[in-house]
This record gives sequence, structure tokens and C-alpha cells, in this order.
Amino acid sequence: MPGAGRAAGVRRLRPQPSEEPPALEEDQDLLLAAAYVSDAQYNRNVPFETSPRAIRLYYFYNHWTMQVAIYFFICVDLSLALFEEPALFPLPFLATSIAEVLCLIAFFGRLVHFAKVTPQMVFWKDTKNICIMVTIALTLIDLIIYGSLEAVNIHSVRWSRALRPVFLINFPESRQIRRTFRSIRNTLPDILYVFLLFMFSVLIFSLMALKLLGDRGLRTVEGLPYFTNILEIAFELYVLVTTANSPDVMMPAYNFNWWYSLYFITYIIINTYIFMSVFLAVVYNNYRKHLKNEIRKLAYLKRHKMMEAFNILKVKVGSEFVVMEARWRRLARTVMPHISSPHLELLLRISDEGQKGYVDKMNFLRLADLLNIQVVTMNIKRHPLEEWMPWVYQSSASLLIQRMVRHRIFVWVYDIIILINAIFIALDEKNPFISYAEWLFLSLYIIEILLKLYTYEPRAYFGKKQFWNWFDMLIIVAALVATVANTTIQSASKYNSQQVLDIVLILRILRLLRVIVSIQRFRLIVTTLINIGPTILTFGGLILVVYYVFAIIGMEAFHGKVRFFDPNFTTPDALVCGNPALKDSAFARDRYCKNNFNDLASSFIVLMELTVVNQWHILADGFALVTHQAAKLYFISFHVVVVILIVNIFIAFILEAFFMAYSLEKSEVETAIERKIQELGVGIQEEEMHDGKLVDNMDAKDSGFSGDDGDKQRKALKGLYFRIASKKYRTVDALLQQMFESEIAPEDEGPPLDEILNFSPSDIYPKVPNFENSA
Amino acid sequence: MPGAGRAAGVRRLRPQPSEEPPALEEDQDLLLAAAYVSDAQYNRNVPFETSPRAIRLYYFYNHWTMQVAIYFFICVDLSLALFEEPALFPLPFLATSIAEVLCLIAFFGRLVHFAKVTPQMVFWKDTKNICIMVTIALTLIDLIIYGSLEAVNIHSVRWSRALRPVFLINFPESRQIRRTFRSIRNTLPDILYVFLLFMFSVLIFSLMALKLLGDRGLRTVEGLPYFTNILEIAFELYVLVTTANSPDVMMPAYNFNWWYSLYFITYIIINTYIFMSVFLAVVYNNYRKHLKNEIRKLAYLKRHKMMEAFNILKVKVGSEFVVMEARWRRLARTVMPHISSPHLELLLRISDEGQKGYVDKMNFLRLADLLNIQVVTMNIKRHPLEEWMPWVYQSSASLLIQRMVRHRIFVWVYDIIILINAIFIALDEKNPFISYAEWLFLSLYIIEILLKLYTYEPRAYFGKKQFWNWFDMLIIVAALVATVANTTIQSASKYNSQQVLDIVLILRILRLLRVIVSIQRFRLIVTTLINIGPTILTFGGLILVVYYVFAIIGMEAFHGKVRFFDPNFTTPDALVCGNPALKDSAFARDRYCKNNFNDLASSFIVLMELTVVNQWHILADGFALVTHQAAKLYFISFHVVVVILIVNIFIAFILEAFFMAYSLEKSEVETAIERKIQELGVGIQEEEMHDGKLVDNMDAKDSGFSGDDGDKQRKALKGLYFRIASKKYRTVDALLQQMFESEIAPEDEGPPLDEILNFSPSDIYPKVPNFENSA
Repeated sequence: MPGAGRAAGVRRLRPQPSEEPPALEEDQDLLLAAAYVSDAQYNRNVPFETSPRAIRLYYFYNHWTMQVAIYFFICVDLSLALFEEPALFPLPFLATSIAEVLCLIAFFGRLVHFAKVTPQMVFWKDTKNICIMVTIALTLIDLIIYGSLEAVNIHSVRWSRALRPVFLINFPESRQIRRTFRSIRNTLPDILYVFLLFMFSVLIFSLMALKLLGDRGLRTVEGLPYFTNILEIAFELYVLVTTANSPDVMMPAYNFNWWYSLYFITYIIINTYIFMSVFLAVVYNNYRKHLKNEIRKLAYLKRHKMMEAFNILKVKVGSEFVVMEARWRRLARTVMPHISSPHLELLLRISDEGQKGYVDKMNFLRLADLLNIQVVTMNIKRHPLEEWMPWVYQSSASLLIQRMVRHRIFVWVYDIIILINAIFIALDEKNPFISYAEWLFLSLYIIEILLKLYTYEPRAYFGKKQFWNWFDMLIIVAALVATVANTTIQSASKYNSQQVLDIVLILRILRLLRVIVSIQRFRLIVTTLINIGPTILTFGGLILVVYYVFAIIGMEAFHGKVRFFDPNFTTPDALVCGNPALKDSAFARDRYCKNNFNDLASSFIVLMELTVVNQWHILADGFALVTHQAAKLYFISFHVVVVILIVNIFIAFILEAFFMAYSLEKSEVETAIERKIQELGVGIQEEEMHDGKLVDNMDAKDSGFSGDDGDKQRKALKGLYFRIASKKYRTVDALLQQMFESEIAPEDEGPPLDEILNFSPSDIYPKVPNFENSA
Repeated sequence: MPGAGRAAGVRRLRPQPSEEPPALEEDQDLLLAAAYVSDAQYNRNVPFETSPRAIRLYYFYNHWTMQVAIYFFICVDLSLALFEEPALFPLPFLATSIAEVLCLIAFFGRLVHFAKVTPQMVFWKDTKNICIMVTIALTLIDLIIYGSLEAVNIHSVRWSRALRPVFLINFPESRQIRRTFRSIRNTLPDILYVFLLFMFSVLIFSLMALKLLGDRGLRTVEGLPYFTNILEIAFELYVLVTTANSPDVMMPAYNFNWWYSLYFITYIIINTYIFMSVFLAVVYNNYRKHLKNEIRKLAYLKRHKMMEAFNILKVKVGSEFVVMEARWRRLARTVMPHISSPHLELLLRISDEGQKGYVDKMNFLRLADLLNIQVVTMNIKRHPLEEWMPWVYQSSASLLIQRMVRHRIFVWVYDIIILINAIFIALDEKNPFISYAEWLFLSLYIIEILLKLYTYEPRAYFGKKQFWNWFDMLIIVAALVATVANTTIQSASKYNSQQVLDIVLILRILRLLRVIVSIQRFRLIVTTLINIGPTILTFGGLILVVYYVFAIIGMEAFHGKVRFFDPNFTTPDALVCGNPALKDSAFARDRYCKNNFNDLASSFIVLMELTVVNQWHILADGFALVTHQAAKLYFISFHVVVVILIVNIFIAFILEAFFMAYSLEKSEVETAIERKIQELGVGIQEEEMHDGKLVDNMDAKDSGFSGDDGDKQRKALKGLYFRIASKKYRTVDALLQQMFESEIAPEDEGPPLDEILNFSPSDIYPKVPNFENSA
């Protein structure tokens, strides 16, 4: 990053021609500026060389095909675990190792490409790049060792497989996952002391339990000695913190004397309730601090990049530096080659308010945000039927239908139909009458859709952001396809695919989700949940990384120790999951044989069960029995990493997202850009798109336009509407960034680049907290 | 409250004599003003009549003996459940009913007393009072019906027992519990929609499960049919949300085909992770909103009461209204009869800065806060040994000892001793060598305490707020007593009390907690936890209320259905907990017979187990088997009330308390009063009390005082120090209130009383959230 700053600094020193520069150099200037703007637009923070060749390489580096390719190779690399021993779909070692080498070559190629783009100094200082190189080297070494040992029939451990997620984390595109990892790393020192105190408390309680209960000769339900070994007690009490063995662990002591229940209640209050809440508090607090700091950094970096772009393109007009209109147009077209002319026109109108033929600095800095606003250009039209045969569409019968469809009762009637449908689904479908009813309901739904399409303008109804209409439509179409498929299969009856039938069933039930569409409060909650969606995917990435590492370790340690037999088998071997060590264990008794580490998919499911926590001690005990008691450490460390750290971060994230949604409900955060679009009178609010208001409003506005208003700006954009992507659909990050940016003054150029990069979370705290933001 | 405002308004209209009023009337004015100040000091918000008789009654009403008496009767009333059928300690119905009638009389008396104090209109408008009266009437009716039926040997239900917690909630002293209840009530509408959506989602998934898995003929581990009944599926899936039956509920489907695990994973992600986090978010958000609103209300009410008091006592001096010094002194003495003269002098110095002989309005308003500051007046003295025999205490050997004790290594050595001690405790104590070691460790600890007392001034070392020194001392003394008791018992050996031995063991292990004292980071975490203590007691009250109601219902519904047998009994009857309906149930297999509702203590333990959640479905199933499937509703409603609402509020509270602690760590919130005390140079910071700095600092300051500084103010307070109760030991509420008060301008008299009482949480939100407080 400092490299970029320096490179740009060099440019600034170059005498800036006040006349139009020669065509070639201008092209290069434009490309460089466009690279800065594009980086600002997508919040990319890759420092790049400013030589013409490097810029072209940088464009290529950012091209979507390259990104897709690299993600493809990462996927291939990670999914190799499915084919390697212990494999879900076995492939020979040669095949998987060739695939792996190909992936490594791709990663190396991407790295070399990056090295060509970025300044040398920056490249070698970046730990991400070093990480990737070391991982590539280690993987190659491991492949060679394993391959040669395999050749002489010695089985060794493919340890480098656990390093594969490094590629997913460290490529510059995985910024979100890296940020979460950073957040975890920053939380560690704070959480460490709480954890130590917590462990100390567990040990103190273990000692007490040993002294109080060790000599009583008590037995557990299984007849085993109860609380006689300090290590076992500590493990049991750790499990009690996760609540997984409550109240069983208490029962023998409680049966002996009710007095001992006080010991367990005290333990649960202190360790389960208080300490676990403190963990959440510490993680949450760090998450908030860190989030704010990162957002601030991003906002300042964006501003910085836009300044660089401005400095490249500026010319002096009068007393101020500006960017001429023609150049601005070419810049916008370079950044977004597929931008439509009316869209470009709109952006120019917003940026060059007075139509002076140039864009001033303040307006230029906004360009990245302007380009980020998803604008839907819509030609407002009448309903096609109205155009084709107005005499029918405007007839009184037709108008009655339209009024009917728009009425509330129409919605209620269909809610009742859905309810009845649910009851029918719950009933036995072997009854032929019910099977016919299925067709009836389906046709009712299809009629509803057709009626709606008759009443509302179809292109508006299926607008890009009309999530709920699409949702409705998709579910009905899917149910139609499913029902037809179901009937076909049933009539063919020779071929009976289980999977197809299952999908049909699920789709038919999903149709009931339409109820959500008609209840406003439900829709709001679901919309918030959908907003959280993209970031939940980040957590998906994080979980994938952690699961992958643990799965690889688990497969190396436990594969083949536990085997699954068909549940109907009752041979002695099947009853102990193929391992005599499991005799009389809870693991075998609960028939957990399929919870094993024999392939990647099974491992992931075991890890998922461990994440849910319940019965994790049974799994841990089972695998400890077939290997060694030390195996419990694997399960404890998984619990600490996933449940105490990652799940708490997940909860912190959802809390934060909801608070944001709540506080936005009560206030109006509107950026200058949105206000401008509204001022120009070419915006349509999201809300107007719902419930049939759209068409009415459009008619009204349309007539306003065709009147002789005479406003030149409006004329230029006549017949077009721009819709701002609704606030409701924005992510927490984007909202936070917007809020922070609206607080930076337009003249504020931010602190110097080095300072931005070294922001620490503590800088952001106000010295004296006030009442509003502390509570 | 409006009554009080009006009454005071009447007072204000009365012509205010500018000369000294007659003595009797002045006395009455003082009493009234003192009542206002005292209410402000303790945040009491009871509207009272201002007639002299009512004020005297009000003083009596607030007297601590009355409060203790009422709490005593509440305790007696609640604990009656221990003696009533089904009883832990059975008493005849006559005895418990007489006790209950006595309690009811006491409650009624308190209510009559309150009615005499408060204006009639206010009294009858207050739902609290109506509630108490209705409950008293209902309880009497129930007693009569039950008693007369009992007389003719018909057993009926003592339903009014579930109403007893009403007395605990509705007496004006239980403000904290009521506030939490209000918070829950306010959360309900918001949470209702999320809950409905959640239930809808559970039902949709149940339908899917029925269709996907119902016809497969699968069996659970116990051989029961799997997922064939929609109600049972819905219950199982609800249990899965609580994670209590994971992964068992998935295993049959997963064993059949791994494909079905996707269904369960989807379910867990949506319902367990996302919905449960959303519940927490909704509860937390409402808790925050509500807390801020209540605090704001309290702060304004306090200001209002102080204004009333000022208006009563003010006289005009020059152009401003003030309170004369003599009157101010009498007021302070009336509010706090036991205040020491130097303390009063200090308060006056702070209130009347310029020593003008009167206190102006701004300083008068602060009086309640000033009285609230816990000030410790200490005479600073040398170490007693130094005074008695300075030649010994100041000798080089003595100084060496003192330096040694103050050194870090001294602490480390004792940490190592504690560690070794822990190992010895963990070892078997039947070995006589270890039993002797016990005496060795004990004497080492006693030597440590003696050495510290030798080095530090004993009265300072055991100051009122020296929590950690007291903690240290108490644990050692307890261990000494315990060890002596242990030895006595062992040598007597004829009498071997289990309980005494257990306490001895626990005390000996608690001694290890001393490690916390020596590690600063641990001490900080524990201090924060201790601060939360008082409010956790509020939660204790809340939990008690909910548990009590559920326990009474549970006892009526389930008592005697399940019986406990000694674990060594293996008769068929004992194996099914005395109820054949439990044959082959998980409840009997896990030997949960002692988890029953046969008396209040057992019920509370069952409810505690249900709060911890794990295995709650086994308990629910068991009690459903011995009664009716509808019994599960009891357990589900308990889960919704306690786990979804109360535990989430508890977590919200802990999060908030920790965030407060974190943000205070970085900032200095100091009220004007504290600053003033510091300015006068008579304050000692909490920090100076630690680690031996105290004595050194004291010496230094002492010499400063004895010098001819000549400062009159200091002279007046010579030899005395005032220590402000450390911020670290304040509760979240107090801190929030302080922060809010520091934001009210001294001249701000707040909105009118009616408006204060009707604050709604939404008023408090800033219209445009800024970056700092939204993230």
C-alpha cells in the first residue's frame, strides 16, 4: 500500500499539463484513474504499480474470469479430500496428486501475476503472499515424501492437506473471511485471561468434587465409579459447562443426598451462565470495536483513492481544479463499460449540477458511490393489454377484476386457501380425493398469479428487486413442475426415484411459505434475515476453513476406527460399530456408528453435531475409547474454537445487524446522492413498488411528465425512472460505511496513508462516553 | 405522584414568609423537605401527602424496621409451600392457614398504612395496590373453600398459592423486580411476531418431516416408530431447537440415507442458530431501550424532588433564592441522623464553596448525591508498632522484613506455595504425611497474614472497602477453623458429622482462590463480576417468582406421580419410579426418579434442570407418560418463559454491564462532587490503598499537613481523609444514572412531572444515529 502512495506521489510531481495532453498519455492517465475509481467502488485495496504495463496487467488481474478461475481451483483443491484416502469416492493417488499439482501451479501463477502488478517491496512485506508460497512449497514436499513412501508401500500421513484452507483465506478476494480471522486474533488476548480464570474455576470445583464425592463409593447409572479421578471429573465438569451431561452428572450425588445438588447449582450458575455470558461479552465487544475500526479504514482508503484519481485528471478552471465533462464521461465509461446512456446522463446531471461543463472536486469524489448505486432504468409503460386492446382492458368487468385483485380480501381469501392446503398436505395423501385436491390448489395458485399479472404491469411486477413477487412465482412454478413430475412418476410407476419424490414433497410444502408474503410483520423480519444473508456466507467460509482443518486431522486420527453397519444388522460386531472397545459404551448404545471420520462428508456431519454441542461428550468418549483418552483434547479444542469463539462471533454479528435494523427503522440516513436523485424527481421509492400502488403512481407521474412542465432536466430523462436500491436490502457493512462517510467532511482528505493503515481500535473511542451511546 | 406535585403546588402558593417562620412550622417544613431529599437519595418514588401527620406516617413507613418486617412476612408467606401438602416438612393445615392469615393481615396493614400516607386518588389509581387487595381477597376465599372442603374430607386445589409472588412483586420496595417484569412486558409484542414466524417455520419443517420420513417405516434406537405423528414431530423439532435431542433425533434418518442429514442441518441453522439469536437480539434491544428510559425518568424525578425541597426552604438573599447554612445543617441532620460532624462539615464546604453562609440552588440540588457518596473518615496514623516501640519497628531487621513483604517475589513465593498445596489436596489425604502437610500450609498462610499486618497499618489494611484483603483473611480464618474442627472430629471419631466434614473440605479448597488475589487481570474480571452481583440478586428475585409459580402448578399437577427409591433398590417398582407407566421410558432408564414435584425443594431442582435445558424432553416425556400428553405444554411454556425470555434478559444484562466496564476503562466519568472533594485535597484514590502504597502516601501527606501550609479549609479537616467509594464497585444502574445526570444542565428543571412519568422509550432515540453509537 505505501508503494501505491509513493508511486502516485511520483505522478503528482510530474508537471501537470494544463493543456490537453497527447492522446496516448491521456489514455494511460484515464486507465490509471479508472483503476483507482474501480478500486474505490469495490473497496479493493491492492497497491499496484502505475506503469502502463502494470495497469493493463492489473485490469486483467481484476477481470472476473480470473477471479472465477482462481475460485474454481480453490474449490478443486479443497474437494480433493473427497477423493483421497479415506475417500468418499476413491481415486488413485496419482490422479489426486496430479490435480493437486495443477492447482498449485494455478495458485503460483496467480501469485506471479500479482507480483508483476504490485511493487516489489510491498509484495515481499505482505504475509499473505509469504503464506501462500510456504504452503505451496510444503504441499509439494509432502506430496513427494508421501508418494515415494507409497511407492515402497509405507503409509504415512498427508499432513499438508490441513494447510489447504490457507489458499482460501489468503487470496486477496477473501477479504471478509480474513477480517473475521483478524477479529478472532484480536479477541484472543482478552479472552485468554477469562479462559484461564474459567479453567481455574473448573479445577477448583473438580478438586471439591473429588474430595466431596470421591470416597462415597457412588456409581453412575451405567454402574461405573463416580467422580473418583480428578482428570475425569474435570472433563465431566467441562462437559457440564456445555450443559450436555446435565442433569445426569448430578443424579448419583443428588440421589445420595439432596444437599449435593447445591454444589452443582453453584457450579452451573458460575460457570455455565456467568462465564459463558462473559465470553460472549468479550467476543462481542471486540467484534464491535474491530468492525468500526475496519470500516473507518475502508472509508478513508476509498477517499484516498478517489483523491488520487482526481489529481490525475484535474485541470484548472478559474481558481479551482476540476475534471472536464468529456473526460469524466470517458472515465465513467472506462470504469463501467456497460453503463447505459441514460444512466450515465443521470450521473452527470448529479455530478455537474449547474451544467457548467465540468465536475468539481467534491462531486468527483462521490463518483465511486454513484457508480455503486444500483439504478434500475425503467421505461414506464401502460399495461400491455391496455395498449393492445384498451376497449377490453378498460371495460367495466375488467376494471372490477382489477379492483378485486387489489383489494385486501383477495389476499385474505388466498391465506385461507393456503391454510386449507396445509391441512390437506398433513392428511394422508393415499386418499384419491386428496390427490385431486392437490390439482385444485395448484390451479387456484396459478389463477392468482395470472390475475395479478393481468392487474399489474408485468415488467414492473417482475422488477429486478421485487424479491417477494419472484419468490411467489418461483414457488408456484416449482410446485407445478413437481406435481406434474410426481404424477408422471406415479403413472409410470416402474421407475420410482426416491430423490425426485422427496424434492416434489419439499416443494409442495414450501408453497406454504407464501403466507409470509401476505403478513407485513413477517416480511419485515424475513427481509432483515435476508440482508444478513451475504455476511452469513462469510461465516460459511469461516466455518468451512475450521471444519476442513479439523476434518482432515480427525480423518487422519480416527478413520476406520468406527464402522457403520446397516441398522437392521444385529450381529455383535454391528452392535459395537465394528470395534470391541465400544462394548457397553453410550456411543454404541445410542447407535452413533455412522458418526465417524471415515470420509469428508461424515466428518463434516460429526463436526456439525459437535457444533450443536449436545451429546458431544458421548462422541468424544466413543472416539477416546477406540484410540486413547488424549483424543478428548481434539474434541475440547474443537469446542473452544468453534462454540466459544466462532458461534459467539456469529451471535455478535446477528445482534449487531438487528440493532442496526432497529435504529434505522427510527431514523433517516440518506446520503447526499440519494437526496439529489430525489430532488431531480426521477427516483421511485421502494415502497411504491408494492401492493399495486406502483401502477397508479406511475400513471400519475406519467401524466405529469407529458404536461408542459418544461423542466429541461426532466425532459432529458423523460420516460425513465431510476430506482435506488432500497435501504432494506443493504448489508450492515455497507450501512456502517455509509454512515461513517456521511460524517467525513467533503474537504477532509483524511489522515496520511500510513496512518490510515495503522488505525488501532482504541483510537475510535470517545474520551468521555455520553449517555446515549454507552447504554 | 401527580398528587404529590399538586400538594407541593399548593404549598408554593402559600405566601412564603421572608422572615424566619414560627418554630413549629419551620420544623414541619424541614421534615417535609427532608422527606423529599431522602426520597431523592434512595430513588424512592412514593407520592405522599404533605400534611404534618402524613409526613410523620411517611417517615414511619420508610423506617427500616417496617421494611424488614414486611420482607419477613413475605418470606414466611412464600415458605409456607414447604409445609403445605405436598410438604417437605408437613404441618397441619390449621397451622399453615393461621400463618397465612397472619401474613395477609400484615400485608393489609402495610397497605392501609400506605393509603394513609398517599393521596386517595393516587392510591386507587395504582394497579399495584389493587393487585395486592385482590390477591388478599382471593387467598382468603381459597382458604375458606379449601378449609371447608377439607373438613368434609374432599381434597381440592389450593390454587391461590400460585398468586403469592404477587406480594413480592407489588410492594413498592421491589422496584428492581418490577422493572424487569415491565421490561419483559414491553418486549412481548416485538417478540410475539418473531415467535409466530418461528412456530410457523417449525410447523413447515414438521410437515416436511412427516412427508419425507413418515412412510419409511424407520424406528428410533428404542424401537419406537419414527416421525409418524405430526404433533410428536413438532414436539421433537421444538426440542431440537433447544439442541437437547441432537443428534439422536437425526440418527434414524441419517442411518437410512445421509441425504436426510441436510434437512436437519438446514433446520438447525435456521431455527436453532438464527431464530434463537434473533430472540436474543429482540430481548436485548428492548432491554437497552427500556433501561435508558427508566434511568432518564429516575434522574428527572430526583431533580424534581430536590426542587420541591429547595422551594420549601429557600429564602431570598440579594437577587437569588438560597438556603441558609443553619437550615441546611438541620436538614442534613434530619435526613441522616447519624452523620458525623466532620462529614457534615465536608459536605457544607463542598456545597458552600465561598463560605458565604448560605447554599445556592445549584449546590442544594446536589445534596442527595452528596449524601449518597460513601465517605470513609479515617484518622491517619502511623503503624501502632511504630508508635509503641519505634526503636524495634525502625530497626534494620524490621525494615528488611517490611521491604521483603512488599517485594513482588513475596507474592510469587506464596503463589507457588498455593500451587503445591493444591497438589497435596488432590492427593489422597489418608496418608499421615499429607495430613501433617496440611498444618504446615496453614501455618505458612497465617505467617503471611501476620507479616502483612506487621508491614501495613492494620486499620488501613482492613478498611471498609478493602475487599481483597478481607477475602484473603476470611478464607484463612475459615480454613483454620475448619482444620481444627476436622482434627477434633477425627480424634473424637465417635461423632462423625457428614455436613461438617464437607464444609471443612470445601473451605480448605476455597483457600486456593487466593491465587486470584495475586494476579491483577483475574482480580479485574472478578471485580466486574462482583459489581454485577447486586443486580444478579434482582434476577434471583425474578427467577424465584417464576419458579415459585411453576413449582406450585407443577406440584398440583404432578405430585406423587413419580416416587424416589434408594438407588440400591432394584425391585421392579423402584426401577420404574413407582409408576408402571414409566416402564421402558428414558426417564426411568436414566434413573430420574428423584426429579419429581413431590415437594417444593425437589420442584425447584427440576425447574433448575429445565432451565439448563439439556434432557428437558426426557423429563417432559416422563411426566407426560404418568399424566397426559398435554403435560408437555407445561414444560414448553416453562422453556419459553424462562429460557427464551428470562435467560436472554440475563445475558443482555451481563453484556451491557461488561460493555459499561470496558468503556469506563478508557474514560473518566467524574461527577462535579468527586472533583470537588479532590480539589479540597481530602480525597484518597482507591488505587492508593493497594499494594502498600497507602502507608507511604499517607506519611507524605501527613507531613504536608503538619507543615505550616496555613490553608484554612484543610486545617478544619486536619487528620481526616475522605475516601470516595471506588467507581469499580458501582452498579450499572448507578453509573448510567450518573452519566445521565451529568448531562442535565444544573439549571434544567426537567419536563413537567406528568411528562416525566409518561416517557416512552422511543423518545430517547436520536433522530439521526451517528457512526459512534450505532456500531
